Amino acid sequence: MRMDFLTLFPGMFESVFNHSILARAAERGHVSFHTHDIRDYTEDKHNKVDDYPYGGGAGLVLKPQPVFDAADQVKNQGEALPDRVILLCPQGKPFKQEDARELAGEERLMFICGHYEGYDERIREHLITDEYSIGDFVMTGGELGAMVMADSITRLLPGVLGNEHSAHTDSFENGLLEYPQYTRPADFRGMTVPDILLSGDHGKIAEWRQNEAIKRTKERRPDLWEKYTD
Amino acid sequence: MRMDFLTLFPGMFESVFNHSILARAAERGHVSFHTHDIRDYTEDKHNKVDDYPYGGGAGLVLKPQPVFDAADQVKNQGEALPDRVILLCPQGKPFKQEDARELAGEERLMFICGHYEGYDERIREHLITDEYSIGDFVMTGGELGAMVMADSITRLLPGVLGNEHSAHTDSFENGLLEYPQYTRPADFRGMTVPDILLSGDHGKIAEWRQNEAIKRTKERRPDLWEKYTD
Repeated sequence: MRMDFLTLFPGMFESVFNHSILARAAERGHVSFHTHDIRDYTEDKHNKVDDYPYGGGAGLVLKPQPVFDAADQVKNQGEALPDRVILLCPQGKPFKQEDARELAGEERLMFICGHYEGYDERIREHLITDEYSIGDFVMTGGELGAMVMADSITRLLPGVLGNEHSAHTDSFENGLLEYPQYTRPADFRGMTVPDILLSGDHGKIAEWRQNEAIKRTKERRPDLWEKYTD
Repeated sequence: MRMDFLTLFPGMFESVFNHSILARAAERGHVSFHTHDIRDYTEDKHNKVDDYPYGGGAGLVLKPQPVFDAADQVKNQGEALPDRVILLCPQGKPFKQEDARELAGEERLMFICGHYEGYDERIREHLITDEYSIGDFVMTGGELGAMVMADSITRLLPGVLGNEHSAHTDSFENGLLEYPQYTRPADFRGMTVPDILLSGDHGKIAEWRQNEAIKRTKERRPDLWEKYTD
């Protein structure tokens, strides 16, 4: 998969793409990450990317020209056109695990990240195919949201996660939160592991885990529990 | 505010903290970011931070010892103890703008980021004060979630956002999604700005914006609309 990121801060992405599973997935050719500076596409002699909103009000708005031109040129850099052009914004569809699964099936994704300001609405109406929000909170820009999406999509690409980091028992994948996990030592500073997990009785352990997953989901996320029992 | 991040990948944070508003906020002394490598606190001679789960199953579990020891030592490095010790995990409370506001009032936050694997439950039970999830999707680790929280909290600290990037009209702050924004030119490639915004009639513009914000919230986020009208 190829992912392109149009941003005013391409440098923000470096250390995230250069570590851990994202770096390894890129080295092994499962994915390639390409960042592009929207400012390089301004026609304005001062390289201005934003301007005052029509109708007044605080804040600045990202101008359509540099974003459309950047998208037009970057689109043609890959072997295939982007399947999706994704805008990160608070008004977008809340990003969920099922979206990560679906997007992991595409060949190429393009992310557009604004910063500080709003987007000119024409970008929304005429350029992008999907708007996503990673949550009901406001950030200084779309960059971290795009990295979050890239991370959660990349780990689902075939071959990226080894067996030791299996995605099968993930929270959300079966509709329940994950059950509690323990590892050695059985007694750490007087804090002990539940006896059942040391029993070797795999049937009972599976039952305990399922019950704990249900209990945790009911207590913490009644909204998920409601969906699960629907 | 001081923020500490306990992680297996301290390098991941660098380029995010070195750009944009986060870098500027740190330079001006509004916030300081400190990353700590959990691996530096292992007592195991192979520096192992994880181990197999009791009771069997795929995946590895973060061991309690290095995390407790890292937290104990880092706690005492600041002028004051952390007000909150926050675990990033899919089972946590969904992080919202109201949480960002509340946490922005603290003096010191400590974030614990796991990677790949689950956490030993004793970390949850005995070390941390708050568990947060940034959304119903799975990531390779808690690092990006911690950066997301750091970003959304930092921008709310007094003095961080200038007037030009005001937080007052943010989505979620008044319970509605933001209305559409437009900037120059009024006609871009034949795509035009709504006449009302060019009218100069500020009363009508305010009314149009409120209506658009309501329309957008109803269409895209019936859940937010329901809360708003409660």
